[in-house]
Amino acid sequence: MMEKEAVILCAEKEIEIRFSEVDMMGVVWHGSYAAYLEDAREAFGARYGLSYGKYIEENIFAPIVELNFSYHKPLRYGMKPVVRITYRPTAAAKLIFDYEIVADGEVFLKATSVQVFMDRDYQLLWDAPAFFLEWKKEMGLL
Amino acid sequence: MMEKEAVILCAEKEIEIRFSEVDMMGVVWHGSYAAYLEDAREAFGARYGLSYGKYIEENIFAPIVELNFSYHKPLRYGMKPVVRITYRPTAAAKLIFDYEIVADGEVFLKATSVQVFMDRDYQLLWDAPAFFLEWKKEMGLL
Amino acid sequence: MMEKEAVILCAEKEIEIRFSEVDMMGVVWHGSYAAYLEDAREAFGARYGLSYGKYIEENIFAPIVELNFSYHKPLRYGMKPVVRITYRPTAAAKLIFDYEIVADGEVFLKATSVQVFMDRDYQLLWDAPAFFLEWKKEMGLL
Amino acid sequence: MMEKEAVILCAEKEIEIRFSEVDMMGVVWHGSYAAYLEDAREAFGARYGLSYGKYIEENIFAPIVELNFSYHKPLRYGMKPVVRITYRPTAAAKLIFDYEIVADGEVFLKATSVQVFMDRDYQLLWDAPAFFLEWKKEMGLL
Repeated sequence: MMEKEAVILCAEKEIEIRFSEVDMMGVVWHGSYAAYLEDAREAFGARYGLSYGKYIEENIFAPIVELNFSYHKPLRYGMKPVVRITYRPTAAAKLIFDYEIVADGEVFLKATSVQVFMDRDYQLLWDAPAFFLEWKKEMGLL
Repeated sequence: MMEKEAVILCAEKEIEIRFSEVDMMGVVWHGSYAAYLEDAREAFGARYGLSYGKYIEENIFAPIVELNFSYHKPLRYGMKPVVRITYRPTAAAKLIFDYEIVADGEVFLKATSVQVFMDRDYQLLWDAPAFFLEWKKEMGLL
Repeated sequence: MMEKEAVILCAEKEIEIRFSEVDMMGVVWHGSYAAYLEDAREAFGARYGLSYGKYIEENIFAPIVELNFSYHKPLRYGMKPVVRITYRPTAAAKLIFDYEIVADGEVFLKATSVQVFMDRDYQLLWDAPAFFLEWKKEMGLL
Repeated sequence: MMEKEAVILCAEKEIEIRFSEVDMMGVVWHGSYAAYLEDAREAFGARYGLSYGKYIEENIFAPIVELNFSYHKPLRYGMKPVVRITYRPTAAAKLIFDYEIVADGEVFLKATSVQVFMDRDYQLLWDAPAFFLEWKKEMGLL
């Protein structure tokens, strides 16, 4: 079934940059951003009812299989950036998110993550699990 | 039973300081040291047959309940310090380790950790588990 | 000069436990708490005008020289604990904070940190810097 | 000038997976891999004389601007994987590395990083700095 492209699901999360996330160069260490994106996925899940607890309950993993970062400008200690997460519609049994970290009207980072669904034995599910299709319907994506 | 004080069990582990562990001030962030001590406990376990896998097998947790750091001098990127871990004999159902991080003949950190034993339901074991007493005997501590 | 004991300076900070801070045992890894305490120190600084930027401006470091953790109960993913930070008055040229992490009316962690003052060459200042004494006066501590 | 494609520069680094890098699911948290790649870049730099200290000395930054991870299989605690880093020749003023994390003959992760050169004011250098071209010549790449 086609996804309805008009529906845009997105969320925002303000990042509090930790001193421990900043490197010797005085900028946020590139590896620290993975946690910011995870914060954004949680904010998305909280907003749209797709929480981590839901997966646990359904005995489903949704591990990240692709993660791409494009660093535009370095974040510094004391900044108050916002990470925006947007659901990217796909017919595949995948969960794809696009991210932007923005501060003072400028883009600091763009990123994309791809998650798949696995059962408890870490076997890939070729079809999206029922609870996820249900969620898509509720969201007006199907 | 009294522990034999003459037996000294210790191990050493060279630390490779990561760029990501150094803060804006150019020194290792104080919170990064917890991982160095954990590396030392692993080195100790590997040397004396008290590995993490052993606990898993026995369905026992040994969570840290006390952790005390005394920072003497700051470690810097590029240094090759060694962390020394020493088992501190105790009659209690506890696992106590003392640590020293040393570089160029100088002490940079002293620390102590205290672990207790718990079962899978996170209930404290007032008596040390059998496998641990066995280990103590093998080590000549009992 | 004696500090006035009646003045109590404290702040609170809600912790958002990150998935990445939780370990294989399903509880917050003991080393993750150092960042929570740092968050609390920032909240304290923001509330009472003793920010990190202030130190930078004055060319002063305030490195942690002692850090003691007492873990009472393990935090788990999904909890919404609060860390309370309290300034401990001292006549010494030190900054001492006591911490408590509390959730659902129960104490999960108690901790204490001690900071000293250093100049840009990492030389210990035996007397507290002028800006800090000024701050103490403003706070009614002197 | 064309780079000579026949020259292959690569290095290897054994990873010691830390307990703190493993998540609730019992696998290495996806964000932990950034440090493994950094370890590999250090090993590469140490082998071929392109160390972090060299950049500092030349007042040059080489920040990461692109970082792409493709997770094939999850690493678990206790594994002893190796990360292989390979220099990817390019005529651009960039530093491109490809990575593979391998254990027991299987690929667990593939990744690519792209670094650019910046001066101390974080201004992009459109031409590679002299010391880097010199290094390329020494390596037989130019």
